[in-house]
Amino acid sequence: MKKIGLLGATGSIGLQTLDVIRQHPDQFSLCCFSFGRNKETAIEIIKEFHPQLVCCERKEDAEQLRSLYFSNVRFVFGEKGLIEVAVYDEMDCLITAVVGSVGLRPTLKALEAGKNIGLANKETLVTGGHLVMEAVKKANVKMIPVDSEHSAIFQCLRGEHSDEVEKLILTASGGSFRDLSREQLQYVTVEQALNHPNWSMGAKITIDSATMLNKGLEVIEAHWLFHMPYDKIEVLLHQESVIHSLVEFKDSSVMANLGNPDMRVPIQLALSYPNRMFLNTQRLNLSEIATLHFSAVDYVRYPMLKYAFDAGKTGGTMPTILNAANEVAVEAFLQRKIPFLEIETLVYRALEAHCAIFDPSLETIEAEDLKTRAQVCQWIHSRG
Amino acid sequence: MKKIGLLGATGSIGLQTLDVIRQHPDQFSLCCFSFGRNKETAIEIIKEFHPQLVCCERKEDAEQLRSLYFSNVRFVFGEKGLIEVAVYDEMDCLITAVVGSVGLRPTLKALEAGKNIGLANKETLVTGGHLVMEAVKKANVKMIPVDSEHSAIFQCLRGEHSDEVEKLILTASGGSFRDLSREQLQYVTVEQALNHPNWSMGAKITIDSATMLNKGLEVIEAHWLFHMPYDKIEVLLHQESVIHSLVEFKDSSVMANLGNPDMRVPIQLALSYPNRMFLNTQRLNLSEIATLHFSAVDYVRYPMLKYAFDAGKTGGTMPTILNAANEVAVEAFLQRKIPFLEIETLVYRALEAHCAIFDPSLETIEAEDLKTRAQVCQWIHSRG
Repeated sequence: MKKIGLLGATGSIGLQTLDVIRQHPDQFSLCCFSFGRNKETAIEIIKEFHPQLVCCERKEDAEQLRSLYFSNVRFVFGEKGLIEVAVYDEMDCLITAVVGSVGLRPTLKALEAGKNIGLANKETLVTGGHLVMEAVKKANVKMIPVDSEHSAIFQCLRGEHSDEVEKLILTASGGSFRDLSREQLQYVTVEQALNHPNWSMGAKITIDSATMLNKGLEVIEAHWLFHMPYDKIEVLLHQESVIHSLVEFKDSSVMANLGNPDMRVPIQLALSYPNRMFLNTQRLNLSEIATLHFSAVDYVRYPMLKYAFDAGKTGGTMPTILNAANEVAVEAFLQRKIPFLEIETLVYRALEAHCAIFDPSLETIEAEDLKTRAQVCQWIHSRG
Repeated sequence: MKKIGLLGATGSIGLQTLDVIRQHPDQFSLCCFSFGRNKETAIEIIKEFHPQLVCCERKEDAEQLRSLYFSNVRFVFGEKGLIEVAVYDEMDCLITAVVGSVGLRPTLKALEAGKNIGLANKETLVTGGHLVMEAVKKANVKMIPVDSEHSAIFQCLRGEHSDEVEKLILTASGGSFRDLSREQLQYVTVEQALNHPNWSMGAKITIDSATMLNKGLEVIEAHWLFHMPYDKIEVLLHQESVIHSLVEFKDSSVMANLGNPDMRVPIQLALSYPNRMFLNTQRLNLSEIATLHFSAVDYVRYPMLKYAFDAGKTGGTMPTILNAANEVAVEAFLQRKIPFLEIETLVYRALEAHCAIFDPSLETIEAEDLKTRAQVCQWIHSRG
């Protein structure tokens, strides 16, 4: 029995992780989890999975749950609580499915405690890749990617030698607005942006797919995860999202991982690795799909992808700025405070304003992250 | 320096094997080879690669080459000579690129002598799969497939557990006549049949692609090579031949191997395994290709594929009969003695006439092979 911990249990990845655990009650159990403010869902999870430790975002929720319901569950809260979950003694594997750069510190703590990680929080590597990969090496644990693209590359590299890789090719669906021109993007609404053609995901990542910054963050993540220089990472538009990503080797042979868009597949692999287990899901039927399409990425149409490559190549704190500015801007768009194209304007402005600090400590990363958030907030408020 | 032996050096696979050796003079050398009757090409190969042992099909060719040209090369001939090449003491790896069931006996001898095999002769496994796989196990050597489909599957299985495979999916281009109806097939010519849309190959295999028996032989080969029951092997029509084959695992994840159609890629992998080496060839560019198509196989349109599945499932000598009848029929078609559709009629008749012998010895296989050839020849002659 593998004991699973889960950061971000009530989000999209969190709920799908629970479904995988549910499908294999003889293999997996949930020993601890964290959630934000969705108390109703958290209560259901506690009732079904009987964890021993639960972290709420807010103190009052922890206190309420503690007093009202479950005498055999320990309730903690806030960032300190998050870290308690991340290093929970009985846990074998931690799935980090929180959204945003809040995932970095608990992931580092989990690695220090020698925990295997299923990484679904891409900001962890984007902001602190150098720290995280060093911690992975030091702790000699496994960090398995849960993102479909990185899981695909991880699978393509199984049994291969990484020095024989020619390039990593991340596929991108193009997001909700792939058929719109730059001009048409001026008038898009939040509802339109949230309507992703292939994947059902959380709001933040769906907007990031539409701007293609999501792919940019994935490029930076792939750089760290697979020790690959940026000139060996490419993005390929592939509207069906059936090929999840590819690896080209130096003999010209290309390996690819395919499947219907179902996040439970990479989640389960992270839990069951190095084995694969049966998953009750729809099987890929290529003759039914009939046609797969591919095209090159237009960096003028998708400037955010270029910002990400540039920030990654510069390195240091630059990807932290990219990510922090984007998180604030996307939140402002979702709250209807700014139009869609303003997201990229704000991110660009933040990057331009920043002078990269190299090999930053965790404290520096967090300080620069906060500074950028405050700055971008101010820009949004002063729009008038 | 890996010393390579090559059965069938002047054929299509043979010449491409030589090109791979040519690209890596510091890694590979050619120590011995066999050829049929193409003396001019054989002489060029001897001059360029300086082998120590050469086998000709006919005694007179061996004698002529011996007397005329090369004092430091030993020339042998016929089946005995083929086996001398197959077990040549200094050789590290044997590529079996002869066409037809003549490949079986030398392959078994090479395995007995503990040689690693790069298998390009599919009839070896079709006719004697049970003997060959037993010999591979006993000798504890590597047998690496050179066919693009089997090399693809071999690569998809790297680092995986074979008991976690749900199915093997062999792709098929559909051959030269894929856009013709059964009615239109009545009038096709040899020249039309030899015009394969994607691959430049030998005449026999190009005709087998048009009838789809080639894919049928590959199904039987895959059954033996990967220890996979027939109900876990599927064929998928994929006209671009970019995805060379796929493997679906029980978690629904699918691995695929892709590339431009270039046989040197799987040939080189068989030579360099477990490593990959740089190959000077055109790289796959999916955004340029833009679209990949897939469709289900119609067994009424391609009855030979069904015959192959049925022969494989019956087992014993049945696949030997399938292959022998087909070899004679294809040869008769190439010599313009019978029309295209008569190939499948003759194969069907041979299969119907045969009562399978199970777990056949090499001698039984060879005897039944000869008997079927004689029978089909007689049917062709008596057509009037």
